[in-house]
Formats: sequence, structure tokens, C-alpha cells
Amino acid sequence: MRVKIFVSLKKGVLDPQGKAIERSLHTLGYNEVQDVRMGKYLEIEMADASRATVEQRVREMCDKLLSNTVIEDYRFEILE
Amino acid sequence: MRVKIFVSLKKGVLDPQGKAIERSLHTLGYNEVQDVRMGKYLEIEMADASRATVEQRVREMCDKLLSNTVIEDYRFEILE
Repeated sequence: MRVKIFVSLKKGVLDPQGKAIERSLHTLGYNEVQDVRMGKYLEIEMADASRATVEQRVREMCDKLLSNTVIEDYRFEILE
Repeated sequence: MRVKIFVSLKKGVLDPQGKAIERSLHTLGYNEVQDVRMGKYLEIEMADASRATVEQRVREMCDKLLSNTVIEDYRFEILE
């Protein structure tokens, strides 16, 4: 089973990396860009199991290792 | 308009960061994890324009700055 995980900074948390990209885009002439937020994207391949089990395990992995829940939100999609 | 961009390493390109996460997950007992690939996730807020214009501009930004097309693939979603 394949799982796609998206981790992004919570609203209100400063994102210097996103700001740097935003400035670079402006320098390149993309002035229509108003805001950039940078996050992480993970693709995980897992042994087959029930959807409920996978969902629970992935949630645990995100809470324990893959995201910092103090400043980050995550969401994920389970693909067959 | 909001655009979500996903940048990931092409197949066959070594991903040491993904491997490190995979090992950490195994150490934590998540042995069902078979492979981890690490990528980037960007959310960009842009001034309103036609969908075709936004698509073309985002493609340019990805090619020029946001991804390294030698080793990375990207895809994006445009939300209203």
C-alpha cells in the first residue's frame, strides 16, 4: 500500500524558507505570487493491511516522528 | 488562487533522507514500512488570473526555481 503524507507549518508559524522562495520568485518577475509556504511531502510504501490499521499506524508515525505537532499539521492519503 | 506543488525525486535517484526516515521508523517498530521517499510540498497563494495563465506561470516557476528537473519530478494542483 502506498501512503502520501503532507506536512505543513501551522498558520501563524513563521516560515523563513517560504519567504526566501517568495523573494526569489519576485526577483525572477513572478510578482503575482503573494505567499509561499514550504512543507514536506513523503511517499511511504507499506505492507498490505486493512485500511483502518494503516490509518492508525500512519497517524502514530506522524505524531512520533514525521511531524512536529507543536508547529506542524499533517494529512495523508492512503492509496491501494 | 491557491496552488499546491509536490516535488519528488525521480525513480532511481538515491534518497538518503528517505532512507534515514525508513531506518528510524523500523527502530520505532514500524516494520511494515518498506520504502520512504522524501519530497517537498509548497503552497503558493497567487493573484487571480485565468487557469491557463496560472498553469503556465507555475510550470515556469517549477522549471526555473522550485525543482531541479535533472533529478526531480513535480506536479501541481490549482485550487480556486
